[in-house]
Amino acid sequence: MTTKIVVIGAVAAGASAATKARREDEHAEIILFEKGPYASFANCGLPYYIGGTIRERKNLFQVSNEYFHKRFNIDLRVNHEVIKINRKEKNVEVVNHQTGESFNEEYDKLIVAVGGEVIKPPIEGVDSQKIFTLLTVPDADEIREELQNEPESVVIVGGGYIGVETAEELHHRGLKVILVEMMDQIIAPLDKEMTMPLVQHLKELGIEIILSDGVRKFQEEGDMIKVTLQSEREFDADFVILATGVRPRLKLVKDAGLKVSEIGVVVNEFMQTSDPNIYAAGDIVESTHLVTGEKVRFALAGPANKQGRIAGAHAAGKTKKKFKGVLGTSIVKVGDFTAASTGLNEKECQKRNISYYSVYLDKGDHAGYYPGSEDLTIKLLVEEETGKLLGAQCIGRKSVDKQIDVFATALQAKMTVEDLEDLDLAYAPPYSSAKGPVIMSGMIASNHLRYETDLISPQDLKSALEAEKDIQLVDVRTDREYEEGYIGGAKHIPLNSLRERIGELNPEKYTVVYCRKGYRGYLAYKILIANGFDTVENLTGGILAWNRFSKDKELLIQDL
Amino acid sequence: MTTKIVVIGAVAAGASAATKARREDEHAEIILFEKGPYASFANCGLPYYIGGTIRERKNLFQVSNEYFHKRFNIDLRVNHEVIKINRKEKNVEVVNHQTGESFNEEYDKLIVAVGGEVIKPPIEGVDSQKIFTLLTVPDADEIREELQNEPESVVIVGGGYIGVETAEELHHRGLKVILVEMMDQIIAPLDKEMTMPLVQHLKELGIEIILSDGVRKFQEEGDMIKVTLQSEREFDADFVILATGVRPRLKLVKDAGLKVSEIGVVVNEFMQTSDPNIYAAGDIVESTHLVTGEKVRFALAGPANKQGRIAGAHAAGKTKKKFKGVLGTSIVKVGDFTAASTGLNEKECQKRNISYYSVYLDKGDHAGYYPGSEDLTIKLLVEEETGKLLGAQCIGRKSVDKQIDVFATALQAKMTVEDLEDLDLAYAPPYSSAKGPVIMSGMIASNHLRYETDLISPQDLKSALEAEKDIQLVDVRTDREYEEGYIGGAKHIPLNSLRERIGELNPEKYTVVYCRKGYRGYLAYKILIANGFDTVENLTGGILAWNRFSKDKELLIQDL
Repeated sequence: MTTKIVVIGAVAAGASAATKARREDEHAEIILFEKGPYASFANCGLPYYIGGTIRERKNLFQVSNEYFHKRFNIDLRVNHEVIKINRKEKNVEVVNHQTGESFNEEYDKLIVAVGGEVIKPPIEGVDSQKIFTLLTVPDADEIREELQNEPESVVIVGGGYIGVETAEELHHRGLKVILVEMMDQIIAPLDKEMTMPLVQHLKELGIEIILSDGVRKFQEEGDMIKVTLQSEREFDADFVILATGVRPRLKLVKDAGLKVSEIGVVVNEFMQTSDPNIYAAGDIVESTHLVTGEKVRFALAGPANKQGRIAGAHAAGKTKKKFKGVLGTSIVKVGDFTAASTGLNEKECQKRNISYYSVYLDKGDHAGYYPGSEDLTIKLLVEEETGKLLGAQCIGRKSVDKQIDVFATALQAKMTVEDLEDLDLAYAPPYSSAKGPVIMSGMIASNHLRYETDLISPQDLKSALEAEKDIQLVDVRTDREYEEGYIGGAKHIPLNSLRERIGELNPEKYTVVYCRKGYRGYLAYKILIANGFDTVENLTGGILAWNRFSKDKELLIQDL
Repeated sequence: MTTKIVVIGAVAAGASAATKARREDEHAEIILFEKGPYASFANCGLPYYIGGTIRERKNLFQVSNEYFHKRFNIDLRVNHEVIKINRKEKNVEVVNHQTGESFNEEYDKLIVAVGGEVIKPPIEGVDSQKIFTLLTVPDADEIREELQNEPESVVIVGGGYIGVETAEELHHRGLKVILVEMMDQIIAPLDKEMTMPLVQHLKELGIEIILSDGVRKFQEEGDMIKVTLQSEREFDADFVILATGVRPRLKLVKDAGLKVSEIGVVVNEFMQTSDPNIYAAGDIVESTHLVTGEKVRFALAGPANKQGRIAGAHAAGKTKKKFKGVLGTSIVKVGDFTAASTGLNEKECQKRNISYYSVYLDKGDHAGYYPGSEDLTIKLLVEEETGKLLGAQCIGRKSVDKQIDVFATALQAKMTVEDLEDLDLAYAPPYSSAKGPVIMSGMIASNHLRYETDLISPQDLKSALEAEKDIQLVDVRTDREYEEGYIGGAKHIPLNSLRERIGELNPEKYTVVYCRKGYRGYLAYKILIANGFDTVENLTGGILAWNRFSKDKELLIQDL
């Protein structure tokens, strides 16, 4: 007997599900409904298409609609919206938007992969024709049409991936770009301090970034649109792009009475919903976080593709493959920088009351003696006592994607930082160093774990200084470095003189040492401890990490 | 009581050991003997220094000799060669090459990190002044001096890392370069077919590569040197670089009666030799291979640094950290290509009678719709039945270092290919694709493992065709692709017509399908199996993988 599989939604998860179902069941009848005019388009490419980095519109279509028919014998029907699931009758109600007709289509197995929809915040004037969103190809077409008018300025609302990518791309096209973000940071998966160099870089490129401020209202004024912020600041622009996020399209599944949690559609490891004949995949489902075991929802292409593949195979009756979970690994190009993260960030560790410590590291992507090395910054979150890696963040100009993928693999394998220390990674001068960034971060974190050093985070040092705790703060950098600025109250003893000048310090006082990146501080820690100092801590990441907390004018550094 | 730690050798392992010992014991007396004039120089940078990519000689020295004294309070003595270890007396005999004097130095703990020495094969004329080697800074200085004479041509003997890097660098400087290698491939850690595109690329750059041929003799002729090969081919060159490998300097430890296996110095996980007061680290020791559990020896900087660090800490009495083992992960720049490998290669799997299968994949380093994507080639070796990853190789123009580091991390975690399939790696269009190269290779390998497809390697297909096995070979590429060449005897049915034309094939015959890279072959496999075909296999990696076996003129492809 032929199985009839109906798939709703033909982008990442839906297209993967339908084609996998075909591979596992050559004889099934497979119908793929897509609300919009295109199947399997390059969602993540849209910002680059409106910016012109992707030159040809046709490049957005990885495969043609015909491809589904000819290669996969899938009955793809674009401009067909499924508006209701009748579970009892095992059919769906479909509207053909081209003809206006509606009809019912029966299924044996149904796969729901309807993805997300743009969140339009309830702001006065938000329905202006000069306000665009960017989720679909027609959205991108509209913006491209607007760009035909040779606009000079744009306000982008939202500092997530789409907002940042679009800001950079439109800036690159020559527009004056203002990016407005309600939170006090861009790119929420990273911790704030890791985003500070990115904001700095975007500003240097000429993009205006406004943080901690939301939009109060939009007003059309002639050919322009005025954007008024909560702070009463006003900007005139030719148009606005709303990149305030996407929410899962849950109405269809909720109306059908399928189990939906606060997070998303509840599914088992085969992507089956509470009705075993109905599967869900992609941006609408909740998944297990591989670090915490909690249910989470990430709207990311990687998991969506994997989930679709598993749903399709299982619907076709052919797999034991399970979807294990997600880490939320993500990456974004920010001008000449790349920013990436995987696993938990510090905000999430705190919210969960996890006992953790953080490690910062600035290190060249490859051996400094080979030309072109660029420093990248790593932040690790590590579980106290066990040394289990909880999460990693990385920013830099080169090789960030490599570091984060190694961390993501390590997280999946539930590695500790001592395992990172042991990694046998590839080294030749153009690519890495003998103790490359991941390994070095593992060594630092392991030293702390084994009590071979004691790290203090910039946040904790800052709190301690603000609480006027009695700290013997020692700057062990060179004279020249010290003269460029230091942490207020620090005594300056260059590392190479520390042994001779150790008598100038009080071994009974709580002592914190720091250098530029952390290594000399570590050596100073060792010398002091060996000389009977009671309590010594080394500022992780050195003054470079410290500075990332101080760019918001709460400077403790004294510029001489 | 102060411990006296003596370290022999001040490059990767020795310098790591001495500085780590200091960090763990501030009060120890630490003496570091170095035979040559420099400590801690950038060994791996030497080819790039003679080529001029590294412009300044001073860049080869990551730290100054003074650095050891001032920062680490280490008594570094360069030009001091240790010629004997007196275990009973716990001292070493040292020659000061600057004064000619010799003396004994006592130790409590001794760390031997003397590294390797160049192998000079016993070839007639090998002692000519026109023949250079490249292991130390003085070696590089000599070659740089030779380059002052504006030579026009060089013969490089040996196609390993140093040979290939040096060939490219001297070619880049404008010399005519001939590289001679005795084996039938360059870069031995890779399997031969993976090196074929590299040889092709070097040839296209203008470097002459001669494989399967050794040097019979060298003869000085006026200002030139004549190189005569086993094949009687002759070349005149201005000079020769011997890059025929390095062997461990074992005399010192052997003379001291320490346990040395056929592989290298026998050490425990703390790097202690058979005498617990004597440690060894770096290129002279044997290590545990993390895939096979066998003892192996790799002369690589990564493990050397880690071993030195562990030896130094343990000698200073302060660590529980153990050296776990090696994967042999390595990487090399080959013109615009990068080649890298980790774990076992196919030759090694065969030698050990491991039941394995191989998977080839050609895939863009990032999403094809974002500009600049370049295909890279991956080869996986996978254990039959268990799906455990045994090894990985990767070549390409971009992102090879990333792929191999993820594979190395996966190997260390003893992951299966189903774990690779699950990886949550970072995706945005400039960096990867939603199912990036590592994940896709895991999916292909897992499909085979779960009997969802059946792969045949190019080697096995070739053997079967040569044995004139009765194979129904089906090319499912497009007309245009087929017209550019196909595997002899193949019937051509484009994938998109396969369903209609299936009647042209005999379902009872052993059938092998192929396409360009493997994906359409996989779809064809699925269609045929679903239509009752008995035995179908899909050529892994498609005709691209096939071609890498055919460049040596045993072409089965018919160019029309």
